[in-house]
Amino acid sequence: MPTVHVNLGPRSYDIEIASGNLREAAKLCDAEADDAQTVIITDSHVAEHYVDPVVEALEGLGCDVSVLEVDPGEPSKAPEVATELWEEMLDHGADRKTVVLALGGGVVGDLAGFVAATFSRGLRFVQVPTTLLAQVDSSVGGKVGVNLSAGKNMVGAFWQPRGVLIDVATLNTLPDREFRAGLAEVVKYGVIQDAEFFAYLENNVAKVNARDAEVLTYIVQRCCRLKADVVEQDEREETGVRAILNYGHTFCHAFEAGTGYETLLHGEGVAIGMMCAARLAERMGRVDAAFVERQRKLLTAFELPLDVPDVDRDELVELMYRDKKVERGKLRFVLPTQMGHVELVRGVANEDVLAAMEA
Amino acid sequence: MPTVHVNLGPRSYDIEIASGNLREAAKLCDAEADDAQTVIITDSHVAEHYVDPVVEALEGLGCDVSVLEVDPGEPSKAPEVATELWEEMLDHGADRKTVVLALGGGVVGDLAGFVAATFSRGLRFVQVPTTLLAQVDSSVGGKVGVNLSAGKNMVGAFWQPRGVLIDVATLNTLPDREFRAGLAEVVKYGVIQDAEFFAYLENNVAKVNARDAEVLTYIVQRCCRLKADVVEQDEREETGVRAILNYGHTFCHAFEAGTGYETLLHGEGVAIGMMCAARLAERMGRVDAAFVERQRKLLTAFELPLDVPDVDRDELVELMYRDKKVERGKLRFVLPTQMGHVELVRGVANEDVLAAMEA
Repeated sequence: MPTVHVNLGPRSYDIEIASGNLREAAKLCDAEADDAQTVIITDSHVAEHYVDPVVEALEGLGCDVSVLEVDPGEPSKAPEVATELWEEMLDHGADRKTVVLALGGGVVGDLAGFVAATFSRGLRFVQVPTTLLAQVDSSVGGKVGVNLSAGKNMVGAFWQPRGVLIDVATLNTLPDREFRAGLAEVVKYGVIQDAEFFAYLENNVAKVNARDAEVLTYIVQRCCRLKADVVEQDEREETGVRAILNYGHTFCHAFEAGTGYETLLHGEGVAIGMMCAARLAERMGRVDAAFVERQRKLLTAFELPLDVPDVDRDELVELMYRDKKVERGKLRFVLPTQMGHVELVRGVANEDVLAAMEA
Repeated sequence: MPTVHVNLGPRSYDIEIASGNLREAAKLCDAEADDAQTVIITDSHVAEHYVDPVVEALEGLGCDVSVLEVDPGEPSKAPEVATELWEEMLDHGADRKTVVLALGGGVVGDLAGFVAATFSRGLRFVQVPTTLLAQVDSSVGGKVGVNLSAGKNMVGAFWQPRGVLIDVATLNTLPDREFRAGLAEVVKYGVIQDAEFFAYLENNVAKVNARDAEVLTYIVQRCCRLKADVVEQDEREETGVRAILNYGHTFCHAFEAGTGYETLLHGEGVAIGMMCAARLAERMGRVDAAFVERQRKLLTAFELPLDVPDVDRDELVELMYRDKKVERGKLRFVLPTQMGHVELVRGVANEDVLAAMEA
């Protein structure tokens, strides 16, 4: 089974990636469990398709399993839902040896990870991501947390899983729009870190769109490796290295906030944001028009939206200043210099930001 | 100023102890702040006496200060109150550079520490404990958290402060009963780690009861050093070393739960629990009657209650089995072998536990 090893000293772990390996999640948990209880946190959509095989596999290994379901969607990523889960875990007899298994997309992973990081001052935690976005991004790197009413991901922790199991076959039930949104982050890794991988995507558009299991396994593995390379250098987002993962995200967060988090999926916002960041880099003489066109072409092949949402442009700039990535009142952007390489650029002028939002 | 250095590698910090040094808290914060904001979390009782000088000192150093007050008492140590504080911090413009200063007793320290550990995935945190219990126990060691409705301290983290400032003059406004409750934990350090310190307490009962500043400074410093010695060996409660701090606590938690957390202060429960643990050790031939009597005499000199509360004894044993310190269904106790030394004893019989509760 393809494995990505995330080297974080005492917090190191493996990401196992295959197609049809969902039941193997039980082994990952059991290895961690030593006759302890496993609590699966999932949402009702994911549970419908995937919770039974995982529960059966765990019970087959003699584990005591409890399943806690939350409502699907971003509103579940809230302190109030975390509180409900903490109370339910206590009702189910969870103790400091309990293992938490997150089965679902980014919301479930972030929420369950936060609950695991804080219940009894920290429980062992296994990620089983079932969306493309979670498989290539949110399940890797240990960022867990919940949203506040006025700010996304404002409460949380760095809490590494003990292991991640990825079954790309779970992507077969993912709605088309969510699958494509995940591809935006896949393209991102090519742009920021790996020109060869970008070319691989260009050469395999049809297979990607057909969700070919072999191609998806390779893509997820490559993205996890690329993200792990960054996280290994900057686990707690202290040195600035991890910031490159935010390519397109300063724009994206403004688009998400400006549309009330209701119109765009996160990956869609990332795709539009990447186009703005590429145009900004072109305007600043960092890349040429061919670079921008190449990125546009691949994102278009994956049928991602690329138009800046219909929100007042000055309001969008205003929102960028409220992002938690602002540093002492200055906007900073991750901008490409060539395919496979980006840099953190400080003190970009508002007029350039405004111009970059015009296609 | 007497200083206790807590050596935890990259998470090391100093505890500064004196009388009348409250304003120095500002320097501790400012050193950490580099033009960042400070959020003081306190309760309304403590704020009345001590928040103004701290705010003035911080403002005198040019800091931007916000004060968030919670209601005094254990009910504030709850996820709902943490959520309110997270939201208020965001409203006050807190960001990842904000420093959280906890000004108050154990409830404020644990709650503020949990908020600091989780806001924006972890903020710098300074403890200014104003009760004896917090000065000698809860402000040292990095355990932070909140209670669930069915379990104390069930949610939290290990999150070390960047510094602790202790002004023993703040104890002058502490109600007598709370001061005495704090002394139970002071006596505990003597029994578990330091026979000389136990003798020092025996020789200074009058000065302790008169809250002599010099004696209190010495006592707090010694207790912080003794606790730091334990925490340095077992920061995350993994090796069992830290368990010795729970001398008397298995009994205590049952007494607290059995009386609905309303009759006993924590330190009072610890005093009664220490007497039960001493009698249990005597019954098991680990110490002699003179040991038990010596401990009883000192606790009595500090006017601590020593009678087991009027709760059905079988119910108390039942409650001990629900404590999170139970290991695979077996009760375990920290029991003395001689003054200044304890051991973790597993598999104690219920009948011995029951007998130890009879004076």
